[in-house]
Parts: sequence; C-alpha cells; structure tokens
Amino acid sequence: MMKYDIGKGKLKNWIVADSSFSSSLLGKAEAIMSLGNGYMGLRSATEEPYVGEVRNLFVAGTFNKSNSLEVSELPNAADVTRLDIRVDGERLDVTPSRTANYVRTLNLKVAELTRSFIWLTSSGKEVAFTFKRFVSLDNLHLIAMNMEIESLNADVEIYVESGVNAQVTNSGVQHFYEGEKRIYDKKYIELLQKTVESDIDFMFHTVHRASLDGVTLEDPFMRIDRRMVMLTYKCTVTKGQKLSLQKLTTVHTSRDKEFAGMELQAMCEQALSSLKVSETKGYDALLHEHALAWEQKVWGLYTLDIDSKHDFDLLAARFALYHLTVMTPAHDERMGIAAKGLSGEGYQGHSFWDTEMFILPFFIYSNPKVARSLLTYRYLGLEGARKKAQSNGYEGAMYPWEAAWPSEGEVAQEWGRVDIVTGKQTKIWTGFIEQHITADIAFAVRQYYMVTGDQAFMDDHGYEIIFDTARFWVDRLEWDESKQHYGINDVIGPDEYKEHVDNNAFTNYFAHENIQLAITYYQQLKEQNTDVFNRLNEKLQLDEVYIAWNEAIGKLYLPQPREEDLVIPQDDMYLMKRIIDLTKYKNQTHVNTIFEDYSLEQLSDIQVSKQADLMILFYLLEDKFSQEVKIANYNYYEPKTIHDSSLSLSTHAILANDLNDTSLAYRLYRQACEIDLGPEMKSSDLGVHTASMGGIWQIIVMGFGGMRMMHGTLRMNPKLPLHWNKLEFAINWQGQRLEVIVTKNELVIKAVNQMPVTIEVYETEYSFDQVLTVSLNEGGQ
Amino acid sequence: MMKYDIGKGKLKNWIVADSSFSSSLLGKAEAIMSLGNGYMGLRSATEEPYVGEVRNLFVAGTFNKSNSLEVSELPNAADVTRLDIRVDGERLDVTPSRTANYVRTLNLKVAELTRSFIWLTSSGKEVAFTFKRFVSLDNLHLIAMNMEIESLNADVEIYVESGVNAQVTNSGVQHFYEGEKRIYDKKYIELLQKTVESDIDFMFHTVHRASLDGVTLEDPFMRIDRRMVMLTYKCTVTKGQKLSLQKLTTVHTSRDKEFAGMELQAMCEQALSSLKVSETKGYDALLHEHALAWEQKVWGLYTLDIDSKHDFDLLAARFALYHLTVMTPAHDERMGIAAKGLSGEGYQGHSFWDTEMFILPFFIYSNPKVARSLLTYRYLGLEGARKKAQSNGYEGAMYPWEAAWPSEGEVAQEWGRVDIVTGKQTKIWTGFIEQHITADIAFAVRQYYMVTGDQAFMDDHGYEIIFDTARFWVDRLEWDESKQHYGINDVIGPDEYKEHVDNNAFTNYFAHENIQLAITYYQQLKEQNTDVFNRLNEKLQLDEVYIAWNEAIGKLYLPQPREEDLVIPQDDMYLMKRIIDLTKYKNQTHVNTIFEDYSLEQLSDIQVSKQADLMILFYLLEDKFSQEVKIANYNYYEPKTIHDSSLSLSTHAILANDLNDTSLAYRLYRQACEIDLGPEMKSSDLGVHTASMGGIWQIIVMGFGGMRMMHGTLRMNPKLPLHWNKLEFAINWQGQRLEVIVTKNELVIKAVNQMPVTIEVYETEYSFDQVLTVSLNEGGQ
Repeated sequence: MMKYDIGKGKLKNWIVADSSFSSSLLGKAEAIMSLGNGYMGLRSATEEPYVGEVRNLFVAGTFNKSNSLEVSELPNAADVTRLDIRVDGERLDVTPSRTANYVRTLNLKVAELTRSFIWLTSSGKEVAFTFKRFVSLDNLHLIAMNMEIESLNADVEIYVESGVNAQVTNSGVQHFYEGEKRIYDKKYIELLQKTVESDIDFMFHTVHRASLDGVTLEDPFMRIDRRMVMLTYKCTVTKGQKLSLQKLTTVHTSRDKEFAGMELQAMCEQALSSLKVSETKGYDALLHEHALAWEQKVWGLYTLDIDSKHDFDLLAARFALYHLTVMTPAHDERMGIAAKGLSGEGYQGHSFWDTEMFILPFFIYSNPKVARSLLTYRYLGLEGARKKAQSNGYEGAMYPWEAAWPSEGEVAQEWGRVDIVTGKQTKIWTGFIEQHITADIAFAVRQYYMVTGDQAFMDDHGYEIIFDTARFWVDRLEWDESKQHYGINDVIGPDEYKEHVDNNAFTNYFAHENIQLAITYYQQLKEQNTDVFNRLNEKLQLDEVYIAWNEAIGKLYLPQPREEDLVIPQDDMYLMKRIIDLTKYKNQTHVNTIFEDYSLEQLSDIQVSKQADLMILFYLLEDKFSQEVKIANYNYYEPKTIHDSSLSLSTHAILANDLNDTSLAYRLYRQACEIDLGPEMKSSDLGVHTASMGGIWQIIVMGFGGMRMMHGTLRMNPKLPLHWNKLEFAINWQGQRLEVIVTKNELVIKAVNQMPVTIEVYETEYSFDQVLTVSLNEGGQ
Repeated sequence: MMKYDIGKGKLKNWIVADSSFSSSLLGKAEAIMSLGNGYMGLRSATEEPYVGEVRNLFVAGTFNKSNSLEVSELPNAADVTRLDIRVDGERLDVTPSRTANYVRTLNLKVAELTRSFIWLTSSGKEVAFTFKRFVSLDNLHLIAMNMEIESLNADVEIYVESGVNAQVTNSGVQHFYEGEKRIYDKKYIELLQKTVESDIDFMFHTVHRASLDGVTLEDPFMRIDRRMVMLTYKCTVTKGQKLSLQKLTTVHTSRDKEFAGMELQAMCEQALSSLKVSETKGYDALLHEHALAWEQKVWGLYTLDIDSKHDFDLLAARFALYHLTVMTPAHDERMGIAAKGLSGEGYQGHSFWDTEMFILPFFIYSNPKVARSLLTYRYLGLEGARKKAQSNGYEGAMYPWEAAWPSEGEVAQEWGRVDIVTGKQTKIWTGFIEQHITADIAFAVRQYYMVTGDQAFMDDHGYEIIFDTARFWVDRLEWDESKQHYGINDVIGPDEYKEHVDNNAFTNYFAHENIQLAITYYQQLKEQNTDVFNRLNEKLQLDEVYIAWNEAIGKLYLPQPREEDLVIPQDDMYLMKRIIDLTKYKNQTHVNTIFEDYSLEQLSDIQVSKQADLMILFYLLEDKFSQEVKIANYNYYEPKTIHDSSLSLSTHAILANDLNDTSLAYRLYRQACEIDLGPEMKSSDLGVHTASMGGIWQIIVMGFGGMRMMHGTLRMNPKLPLHWNKLEFAINWQGQRLEVIVTKNELVIKAVNQMPVTIEVYETEYSFDQVLTVSLNEGGQ
C-alpha cells in the first residue's frame, strides 16, 4: 500500500512512502520512486530481485535501434542495483509473514530512496536491513548505494553478491555489444558496453566497500561471466554486529559532451579516476553534496507552496516538481523529455507533443534556461522534421510524432495492441497522420518568446522553426473545390480514438495559428531585423512561401459552432457517429478497458473520445471562443471522453476552473495527481506520466492561479479551491522573478528585481515594480 | 532435495523425483528433468516463475550469431511453459510453509514431467495443483502441457495468463528479430521469430483449452505485447470444482528438412494445421502416442538391466539413456550433440570431442544409425574443418574444437573466467591449440567401421575424413633437428590445465594413429576398391600425401615410460613442474575451486591436471602399453588430477576396472552418476553433462562388462562390482544384435540373428551363432 503523508515535522509533505511490500505489484513503486538527474534515470527496483521486476537504467539521449525492424529507443543499460543476499543460505525475500517494520521512502527534498525492515530467517533469526541510494544531482554520473545488515538476536552467515550486470534488456531487446570487463585491484569493476547501431560506448565503474563493525572485508570472490562482473562478500555477522556495504558507481557514455572526440581508453581512465574521487568522500559526504544541489537547483528555485486541508495536495505538487527535475536532460540541448521520463520502457524514451503542451510551460515560467534547451532540441530536430516532410512528399518541416535523436526524424512504432476482432496487432497511424505536433511546436516557441523575451533564441532558432513548419502546412493543405476552402484531411487529432478524420478542429486551428505566426514574424523581421530576415530568407526562400501563406490563411477552414447547440464538430464526421452508453468505461479503475469490447476500428464509428481535443484548443486559444461555446462543448464532449490518456485530466481541470466550476476543477486535480500517486497499482508500470506532472503544475498555476499569457500580456485570475487557504508560487516573466501569493482574499505579487510589470487581474490592468496587492472577492469574481 | 528412488512397483527405478521445492536452487531440476526429443530440448522450469530460473527452449541445429562479436550459439527460443497463476489475486509461489504434498517427478519410462502439491492461500484456502508436460517423441514438433486446479475447501478466484513469450534471451543475448504475432479464432496463437544472422524462421503455434468441470471457458482476455502473445483465463472455482487448462504448442523452423524450399506462409499454414490435428486428440491420447514411441525407439531397443543392491545404479543408467535420447538430434545428420545437450545454455550448444570419445560408443553399439548420423555431421563438418585448417595455415581438415553448423568451422569462445591475478578474463586457447579433436574424430570413424562393418559409410564419408585429417597432421608436425624426430608443439591436450605444451602424449599418439589409419586405408583401398580410391585420390591427391604420411609415421615422437618409474611424461615439461598439496581441491564439493586460489597461468607451473589425459590414452589404445606402465602412471597421475572435467571420472572408472580395482571402479561409477544426479545442487545449472551420460554407459559396458573392440575383434572380460548380481545389456556387432547377460559366475551372449560371432573372453576365443555361455570365476580372472 502506498502512503503519501507519513512525513512529520520538517519532512511533512516531503515523503512518498510504502509501508508494506507486495511482490506482485512492483511496478508502481519502481516507477514513482525512480531516481534520476536528467542525465540518467534509475528505476527503483528493490535490491533483492523479484519475479516481474523491471530493472531500468536509462541514460538520456543514448538512442539505439537494436535491429532494422525496431525503432530507436533508449537502451536499458547495465544494472548495478541488484544485490543477491543470502542469510544462512536463504535468499532474502520480503514476504509479509516474515517481515516487520517494513518501510520504503522516497524523500523528495533530498531525492534519496531508503528502505528498512527486519527479516526473520526460517529458523527465527532476526536481521535488520537498511538500504539507501541516490542518483546524484551534484555529479550527474554517480549512483551511490549503501546497505547495512545487523543481526539482532543470533549469529548469521551473510552472503552478498554485487556487481554490474549487463544481461538486462528492453523487454527482451538487447541493444548492446558486450564490451570489456575487468576488475582492477580486486575492487574496481569496469564493464563496457557499446550500442549496436548508434555506436555509443557506455562505461560502468563500480567500487564496493564492505566492512563488519568498521573492519574492511578484503578479497571478495570475483566472477566475470557473460555480460557481468560480480563480487561476493561472505562473512559471519554475530549478534549485534553490523555489516555495511557501500557501492559507488559511475556511468559515462561517449555521448557525454565532455568526452567529445576522446578515445575509449582515455574516457575510461577519466571515468575511473572520477570514481576514485567519489570513493574518498564516501556515501554520506556525497549525499550531502547531492542534497545541496537539490536545494540550490530545485527547491530554492521552484517556489511552490499550498496551504490546503489535504496535505496530499502539496505533496503531489512537490512530487510533480521532483519528477519534472529527474526526467529532464537539462544538461544537453540535444536531448528531449521522454513520455515516461527515464522511469520505464514505455514509449521507448521518445518525445511527443507532451513536452511542448504539457511540460514546457512549467519550464518556460520556472526555469527558462531549461525551456530554451528543450526548444533547441526541437531546433536541432528540424533536420529530422525535414527528412520526415520529404519522405512524406511535403516541403518544410514536419515534426515527428515521436522523436528520439533529433536528426533521426520519425521513430513511431507501427504496431500496437491486439485488435479483438482480427486477432492481429492494430496498426498505429500516429507516426504518419497525427500531424498537429508540428503546429504545437511552433506555438510553444512563441509562448517561450512571449514569456521570456529571449530575442537571441528567436534569431538563432525560433523564427526558423516557425517559418519552416508554416511552409509544411501550406504544402499540406488540400483545396476543397465544392466548399471553396482549404481543409486538412486524413489526420488524427489529439483524440486518438478517431483515426483518418478530416478537418480535426484542433489541427486546423493550430495549423492556422502556425501560418499566422509565420506571416506576423515575417513582417516584423523584414521591418525590424534585416540581418536575420536576409539570412533566413536566403536559407528558406521566405519571400516565395510568404505568398503561399497569405493565400492560404484566409481560406483555411476553421470549424464553427453549430447554430442549434453551439457544438463545434471535432471533425467532419464525429457528430454523425452513433452514441453509446459509456458509463462502464467512465467508471473504469484502469485505462483502456474499452479495448476489451471494441477494436480501434469499431471505436471510430462511435462518439467516444480518448482525451481532451476541443478542450485543449479552448485552453490554449481561449480568446477565439466565447464562454457560451466553451460551456456548450464542454457539456457535449466531456461525457463522451473516457480520459484514457493522462493528457486529458489537467486540461479538463483548467477548463473547469475557467468555467467557474472550482469544485470540479479540484476533483480533477486530485484525479490528475492520482494518475501516478493514486490507488491504481498498475498505472505506472511502464513509467511515470510525465505530461501529467507538467499538467499538475499547470492546474495549480494556470488553473487555480488563473495565470495565462495572452498576446504577450500576463494575466492572473486566481480561484482557489475551497480546501485551499493559500497558494504560493514563483514565475519568471520577461527576465524577472515574480513571487506570487494567493489567498482567498488577496493576490500579492512581488517583482523581485524591481523591474516594471504590467498584469491583468480580472480584467483590470495593473502596473507595478515592487509589490502588487489586489484584493479578491471571496469565491472568485 | 532430489530423490531418486521413489518409484514403486512397475515404476521402480524409473522415477527421478523432487519431494520438496527450493526456489533458491532451481537449476538442478530444470536441467536434469529437462525434456526433449533431439529435435528440441525444453528445460524444466516450473510453470510459475521464480527469480533465478532459466527458461530454455532450444531447437537443435538452429545456430545463430547474435552479432559480430559473439560466437554462433543455439538461440533460446520463445517460452511457452510459464503460466502466471493467481489465486484470489495472490501470485502462486511454492514456499515450503504454504505448500503440502509437494512432489515433482520425471518418469523416465514415458518421459513425462509431473508436479503436484496443495497450496494454501494467505487466507487459508487450500488449492490442489497438478501440472503435466511432455515433449513428444512421436511428433517431434509438439510440446503438450496440462494443468488442473482444484479448490479443496473454499471458493477461489483463479487467474491464469498463458501464451508465447519471445522476450527471453541467452543470458541477455537476443538472437531473434521479432516476427508476426497473431491470434486466430480467439484461440490459436501464432508467434514468429527469425534469427538475426542465420535467417532461420521459428514458428510457434499454441492452442489452449480451459474448462471448469468440463465446461469450456470461452473468450479469454487477449494481449499482444512486445515479442509476446498472451491469453488470460479468469474464473471462480467453487469448492470441489476443477479447472483444467490444456496447452498444446508446435514448434517448427525453416531449418526443418520437410520445409526445404517453402515460403514462410506455407510453412505456417502447415504448422497450424498440424496443431489442429493434435488438438483433436488431446493431451492423454498424445501422451499415449509419445509413450509408445519411447517404448519402441528407446526402452525396447536399449536393453539395459542391473541387478544391484543399490537401486540407484540402475536408475542412474536409465537416466543416462533417457538423456542420451533427448539430447541427440537423431533426425538430422546436419546436427551434432551439444556438450550440455539441449538442457542449458552452457557451451552454447557446441559439439566437442565429447561426442566422439564419450557418447558415440554408446550409439555405435546400441543404435548404429544414429552413430552414422553423428559421424555424417562430422563429414559435413569437413567444410568447416578445411576452413579452419586454411585460416591456421595448414592443409587438410583441422576440426574445430567447438562446432556448430557444420560448414562454419571453429566457434570456440575466446574469453573465459576471471584471472584472479590480473582481474581480466582469461584467454581461452582451446579453439586455437586443442587440436587432438581432429585425430579423435578419425579414431571414432574407424571404431564405427570396425563395429558395424558399414562399408557404404566409409566409401561415402569415412575414408575422406581419415585421409584429410591425416593430411592436416603431417602438415602440422614440426621437425626437431636436435632430436631428429617430429614433434607437435604448443598444444593443449585433454588436460586443459596445461596450455601451450609441447608433445602432449595423447595428442602425439592420436596423431600417429590417425596417420597410421590413413596409410592402412590407402593401401587397402588402392588394392580392393579402385573406384573409391580413384575418386578420393583425385579429390585429395592421396598419392602425394601418402609419401608424406610414410615419411612422418616412423619419425613422430611418441613419449615413452621413464626408466626409473615407468612414468610417461604427459608433455615435455609436466614432470619438471612443482608439486603442491591438492587435498583441498581433491575434496572439493564443486568443481573449479582451484581458480579461487590460482590463475590458469599459475596452474601451468604446477603438476595438477584437470582430467584424464594419459589415462584416456591407456583406455583407447590399451594394447600399446603394458599393465605395469598403466599402473605406474595411474598411481602417478591420478593423485594430481582434480577431476574438474566431467570427462574424467568415467575414464578413471574403466581404467580402475581394467587394473582390477573393482571397488574403486564402482566408487567412481557412483561419482560419475552423481555428477548430475548427486547432492551437489549447482553442478547442472548450465545443463546436464552429456559426455558423462555416455561415460556412465561406458563404465557399465566397457568397464564392468569388460567389452572392447581391439583390431576388429570383440572382447568381453566382465567384472561385476561386488554389489551387482547381474548385468544385462545388448549391443550391435557387425549388423547383429547380441544380448548379453553377466552374472558373477557366467557370461551368456545370445546372437539374435543367429549369425556367426567370434569373441574373446579372458584371452580365450569363442565362436558361436546362437548362444554362448562362458563360466566365470568368482571375483574376476
């Protein structure tokens, strides 16, 4: 049973804990308690192995294609977490009947995982175990582990095998050539692997320090086997004695920037000597450095506090910030955020629109440097996007639905779950026809620009993205002679239960926005920044495509509300499909149950949606639709939406708040938090839902905080949930940090750098350069 | 705890059983109870999974090289044995405290594995489980499984997930591309895989029949995931009800002879329809057909009976015959016997000299057709052997130390266990310099010929092997100017603890024998069979190499006994190395403990041997050495031999018998039997010791039965162990079946076809054509 509120005192709302252990439900804790630092992600499988465990270690950006039939994915690198522990010959196996005082905690504040319990051997001996580990935010290459075994009431023989095991795979897919394996000085393990296609060297260096009541145990038994190097420590631990095992591992790859151009041997030497430096410090000092980095880089920066009657609300928010940190390769702009972060094999480590629409807003407002890095990843991705456009017969940049290494282009899987009718795998069309992502990225570039004012980024990268995506769209549009407008046929919109639709509203509006942005920036640049204009004009023949943009922009079909009920058709056919009773699926305890009754092809003929589609359009382009239209459509579509995507709830929560249903919004906030942190024990098996983590932040700040950037203007219409007394957060606005406190009665904003700010609060514009205080009517305005 | 004597009545000495289960020692039962039919081998992992299990399914001859850095090996194909079983949501996990009446048995007579027990749920419900399975000897492609679950004292919810899982690897090495996955008619699973290098299609077809008290359960939940297809059956089993699940799987590959030239789709269709035929029969009828095949092809053919005070003696002999059957790809002469059979990943499915020296004698005397197939594998292997010779700069055929697909040549691994001094992996030299195998194969060809009189085999294959191996040897010899003889330097002999030695006695004598055979057959053929001679002379330029053979044969150095103590130097340096106290290693409970104290390089300087070296020479070329010399060397070398190879004991047992130490011989017989069937629970983890299985048969027939073929003459000098009253066996001699009964007082031989036989018994020659009875003096002569 996961528990989320056991932190006391200073640790209150900082602890995610598991107070009992079930070996049949391992994935939840493995994923939600996963550790990481953006460079690598380490799934929190327990030290002792269990059937069904998933031991994952991913290093961001190290994509590899295991063979020509597979897509590029993040390879599961060697495991260092598994320890084979035997007490008097019995394998340690935490079954409830033989375990007492079990607790596993992830301390979000210092990002350390600990686990302790007392285990009874079959002959009744009591042995206390404590395990600790962290993945350093101070030294991005370091995994530190510590184990203590204390014999409480008798003498026991302890056997611990530990090392580096590269026999692991991604669900059976092996990505590595076996490399050299070696033990230096009977204690430093070196294990190398190389990815079979992308040619990336991985270097593992591990050192152990085993000691019994402080006396070092020398000369472990050494074993080098296929793809593994193991050391075994054996000793008798008498009653009251304590056996400690410290294990430090460094992980480096030839993709690391600091290794650019270096030979394998030189990299290994550098890696090994860095391990030796860590070794001299030891676990506790390394933990201290790591905790300091979390304080400086995370908690000190991402101010967020919620005074709620439910402690869970704050814990869940911190949990989201924790994962937003560990999942994000902030150190390298060649890397994006994976849909499951670095916490599981799901979605192969690929980046989707999840980044731009759900996660990026957090970074734009909280850590623009990281936002810039993530958008630079998309800039580098223009190479892949142009490849994809070309191979699909289009001009410009057509972003991949799933992106891996930026130059590669589309990496989407082609085959998915079983079709219950045909017994075959369902073809996955998203990589071919879910095309809105191209406009989503252009939209995100503009959001970043508007919020940060980062002109250099625009000049170097941003404009080029917007122009070349707009070039794609005008080439993509199809002229409908009968209706005398351009349409976009045969796509998938955000609602992925509708494939091969024509004129998906979201797609059309976003394509329109993309082209409009290009026209606007073309004009601005031409007038205001000739250098950049000329460079891009030469590179992209802007003058030519500008004509096409202007020709298309007025004739691109934008679906409008029906007269009778103000419902906007999600696509040309949606409203004509049959309506069925969805109660069963709306009440489901886990997602995707509808596929037990219907094939995807059958779903195409039913008015059922996987996730927010029009709703996200209302959220992102809110000024294009009236409140009446929004309400009418919310009431029409939400009952037909089964929220099988984790992207759905946060949008609906923000919308509900916008539409003044604060209590529904709060309920949806809780639901969104429970996607990973809830009672459904299998929802996180493939990894945490990263978009939902960004969504949680957005519900808090964009929803309850009511913050939005419209046409370059900051707006804040806060509406706290009933249970909340106070919400504090900070954002970056035009280079300045704004600290915001919202209570039921008051909005207070502090301009930290004392630079002038203009903000709209409930339709009144305020300007200030120190502190703004606006009193709010109880219950929102 | 393994037990080996629980069969009662008709099943007496037919049952290998396990009466309790330990999840920390899985390998033993997995390997020794493994099933197979020579086409495929299925390791006997339990249905419910455990940490540390090894689920293996190998199809003989389907070698693949997973990448350019690996050697060819038998790939671990998809698993069908695993069932995920939950009772009231709890995963079935046979822990002693919750399990009663546990027993797992391998019935050797019908080659069926069964397992039954009562399991207590955590709420105290009692559920009885019975599992059965076999790998058909009647239909080589069929794996049949049956499960019954009965609820004894309450209602339980049962969940069973079952299907085909191709996520398995060889210790992390993946050999397959993922192929098509499909479910036909909601019940027939199809899963295809293709080896990545050797391009072999594997086709799995599985059908389930689940029923509750006879009523079929329809519409399982279907899941197609990465490299797997699964069906889930869920139901409530009320008290007294029985849930049955029958699972039939066929395995086919494009390497199957009957599929030659066929397209994948046609193969699949044929495979699926063959499954449907099996489906109509059902488990019990299929088992009956399978048992009949075992009676006809195995037990009815391989007469072997021992009347011993220790039942184990007979059980172990039957166990050996069982494994000699399941390990041997008798259906296809393109395939050899793997060192671990098809029962584990050890030695990658490669064939060594183990086949010719340890296993082949059994088949030569018991089933010459299979012996011929195995030697034809070596004939086809001439292609690989010539490749190896060429790449090593030699002429003729230099057989690979490790062989896979016959045309490939050498496939030995290059790196082995950790060197405790350097911390690196030890270089494995056998593939380069353990060269005696070339002569071993020539020797085996002659043995086969002499025993069977199969002239057609010699004409088509046998002579060519002997001539081309002899060609290799004369090119390989090195002239020693100072000693005026030819030597063979820088080799490994049978004793692999001595690398890079000069003039290993076994190697030199066997090379000499090989060349001598070539000379003899050259002369015979030239005189008696001009057609064959001319064909081979043209192909191999015999006339030319014949001169070289004659030049070399008299000058090849054959190490002789030292004057002072009659000890023959195992190699030029052995007797000059230092002698250490080996007591610790002689008393070891598992092999290879010496490597915890010494590196292989260090062992090179010590008079310590891994296994029989001179002893096997004495056994195979017994008439070249006097009894005194044999005794002197036995007494010198055996104390220095730590029997770290399973090849060692059987040779020593036969030698001990030859040297009249019957009680030592019996003790060594027991030890040889206990290599797999003994108390050391980890010795079989990587698979059974196939050479030892052949060795067990040899100890019985060549040792206690005293049978030998010398210069074409059959000899039998039986000497039964004290505990044995009677030994019965049958052999094939010159196309006739001879049935032999040995008691303390009498030797009776029946010539089944009533063809004349000449045999030497204790130096007296007898001729007969019906029954020979020779009375023996008690205690041997």
